[in-house]
Amino acid sequence: MNYTTLTTAQLQKELDALMTEYRAFCDKGLNLDLSRGKPGSKQIDLLTDMLTCLRTPEDCRSENGFDNRNYGVLDGIPEAKKLFSELLGIKESYIIVGGNSSLNLMYDAMARAMLYGVFGSERAWSREEKVKFVCPVPGYDRHFGICKSLGIEMVNVPMTPTGPDMDAVEALVANDPAFKGIWCNPKYSNPDGITYSDETVRRLASMKTAAPDFRIFWDNAYAIHDFYSERGNDALLDIFAACREAGTEDRVFYFASTSKISFPGAGVAIIAASENNVKQIKSIMSAQTIGFDKLNQMRHVRYFKTAENMIKHMQVLAEIIRPKFETVERILEEDLGGTGTARWTDPRGGYFISLYTMNGCAKRAFKLCADAGVRLTNVGETYPYGYDPDDSNIRIAPTYPSDADLEAAMRVLTLCVKIAAVEKLLAA
Amino acid sequence: MNYTTLTTAQLQKELDALMTEYRAFCDKGLNLDLSRGKPGSKQIDLLTDMLTCLRTPEDCRSENGFDNRNYGVLDGIPEAKKLFSELLGIKESYIIVGGNSSLNLMYDAMARAMLYGVFGSERAWSREEKVKFVCPVPGYDRHFGICKSLGIEMVNVPMTPTGPDMDAVEALVANDPAFKGIWCNPKYSNPDGITYSDETVRRLASMKTAAPDFRIFWDNAYAIHDFYSERGNDALLDIFAACREAGTEDRVFYFASTSKISFPGAGVAIIAASENNVKQIKSIMSAQTIGFDKLNQMRHVRYFKTAENMIKHMQVLAEIIRPKFETVERILEEDLGGTGTARWTDPRGGYFISLYTMNGCAKRAFKLCADAGVRLTNVGETYPYGYDPDDSNIRIAPTYPSDADLEAAMRVLTLCVKIAAVEKLLAA
Repeated sequence: MNYTTLTTAQLQKELDALMTEYRAFCDKGLNLDLSRGKPGSKQIDLLTDMLTCLRTPEDCRSENGFDNRNYGVLDGIPEAKKLFSELLGIKESYIIVGGNSSLNLMYDAMARAMLYGVFGSERAWSREEKVKFVCPVPGYDRHFGICKSLGIEMVNVPMTPTGPDMDAVEALVANDPAFKGIWCNPKYSNPDGITYSDETVRRLASMKTAAPDFRIFWDNAYAIHDFYSERGNDALLDIFAACREAGTEDRVFYFASTSKISFPGAGVAIIAASENNVKQIKSIMSAQTIGFDKLNQMRHVRYFKTAENMIKHMQVLAEIIRPKFETVERILEEDLGGTGTARWTDPRGGYFISLYTMNGCAKRAFKLCADAGVRLTNVGETYPYGYDPDDSNIRIAPTYPSDADLEAAMRVLTLCVKIAAVEKLLAA
Repeated sequence: MNYTTLTTAQLQKELDALMTEYRAFCDKGLNLDLSRGKPGSKQIDLLTDMLTCLRTPEDCRSENGFDNRNYGVLDGIPEAKKLFSELLGIKESYIIVGGNSSLNLMYDAMARAMLYGVFGSERAWSREEKVKFVCPVPGYDRHFGICKSLGIEMVNVPMTPTGPDMDAVEALVANDPAFKGIWCNPKYSNPDGITYSDETVRRLASMKTAAPDFRIFWDNAYAIHDFYSERGNDALLDIFAACREAGTEDRVFYFASTSKISFPGAGVAIIAASENNVKQIKSIMSAQTIGFDKLNQMRHVRYFKTAENMIKHMQVLAEIIRPKFETVERILEEDLGGTGTARWTDPRGGYFISLYTMNGCAKRAFKLCADAGVRLTNVGETYPYGYDPDDSNIRIAPTYPSDADLEAAMRVLTLCVKIAAVEKLLAA
């Protein structure tokens, strides 16, 4: 039944039926959560042997003889650089291995830019009259949180099925030197699950920027977070290679982590960048720390051993995650398919699915869900300043709930989306 | 023999004898290092069981049921707060447990102050015309490195046997609002090994500051790093209690870590501060990270269990470290005692001994040592901008070399100090 073609009387009747169903859900006293992009316990339990894979002082030693229990090694142990290099196809000399959080490395990179500028800056960004960032929307709330915290003005550009609307991006950054960068989550983007096309990556690499010190914050959070066998997965073009070709290699700050590969709270993160950038970053970082936790880096090296093993591990995780995504998509199709009340994305990896309600209906659906005991990501959180101008995007995070909870929560969500839509159509 | 009373002829004869001895050392091809404030392997080997003290998913869970393998808990696990609270006598609500590095927490605290100001600031410190910090000298080079990196002007005040010269400190900060803070390493200070007297702590707590947002960066790095039984150790007054009494509790940023208790490269660090400060810090920190490595926090909790056990562990470490300090002091006394060429400190804990050559002799002694294969901390490094106006202070770090290497290196050092002194006296 396509709701958009119903008469007022038909809509009213449908609303009555939906509300009856809704009240039955409310009476169940549900307490469900679709908001958290957290790995489930089943995933993490697979890593238990990592806890004890360093046992002796010798296990803590690098091949070069360095005792990683002690102070030193600002930019990460060589073995960890090698592992990430193989995994992501980035030169070892481009990689700084940090602590447990890529978000922390991103925040620090932005804070450094504000305090000192980046390689090639004329001055610290905080000395500029205004600093603006391009924010493809919807996007990751914590990217926007960094900009908000540091007083960087965010300007939306829409996501398309091939990545950010590059015409819009190019138009913004070509003439306004206040634009110092863009946030990108280029593979299985949060929350849409979209992977940037080769053309998008090439245009990002080659576009003209008015700011000589423009930076692409390339948060490749889901680099190997694929659900399907090789041919079914999305492939992302190598941003460094694309930039090298365009002569813009200093433009990239690349981030990744094992947060959704090993332990979400105790993984290892990296920032990668051209040698010019790495040199500038390390010179400042040397005032900040003597070194990150090298034992945790070593733990990851000893446990995974090779990039190939990490990929294999992700294939095991995919067996847990993929069915959850399939549940979400099945229920969306069963309940909302053909109703004209919503559309949604169908990612082949990553952690999120985007549901788009009819414009003006997301907050209402969120409220209805909350009242029925189902927690969603706050509407607007996927946009700068917490404001979705269409009041439409709902981010679904399927990984953390149990299969049963996920199914129950999704049924409530689809019901609430329909109610909100009918209410809107009735009010029109 | 007191060199300062010798005739020129006697000095020349002594120099010839010293140089003969020196050339013999040079011929040995030594390669020794007294510069590194690093725990020795013997100390760290005691911690091997900590590597494997988390074995199961249940081991990773907090008492409150939280799974510390997963995301979350910005300010540290409750068990770690409790452990540090008991150990340091700080309220749990004042404590934020971070990652592996207190230096990182200090840098971040200063960077936040520059970018946002602190609780009570009228504006971000970077918006002030000038920011100055009081730097008791000699001090810790990495404190000075943070100020230098962030463009904060450092002003020296001399250390005394009871801590910074408080008359000088008070005179600086009372009238000049550009002074936003002071660096303190209040117990077994780096490099002198001096513990601030109760009066010093009280004066720091109660002094008038022209800046309303003045901060004491209280780096209590050696809080429990005592060499002797309880009565022989230095006692440091509780800075929070002193400030509470003076109504200045927001003035303190307190730092500590387990870097020289557990693994130097993989310990746990804290920042502690009043609730006003903690609230402001956490609100900014929430843009920086979802949480620090909670498994490493849990590892420390499970391994040490109680503050009492940590103190006991430090007593075991003291049995390794104290003899090294005694070796240094014995050789200084044997070789330099009564020569009038040097004085030195005699700490009852911590990691360093300060040797003061005759003014104008430290760099020369350093160079002589280097040429004979003995590496010292760079002269000047214990002062802001790397400049010791007296060219006198040499920081001795006895913990890392073996006992035999330490003895050998000390013999070279004392010889070089004597040569430099005689050369100076001859030139006068």
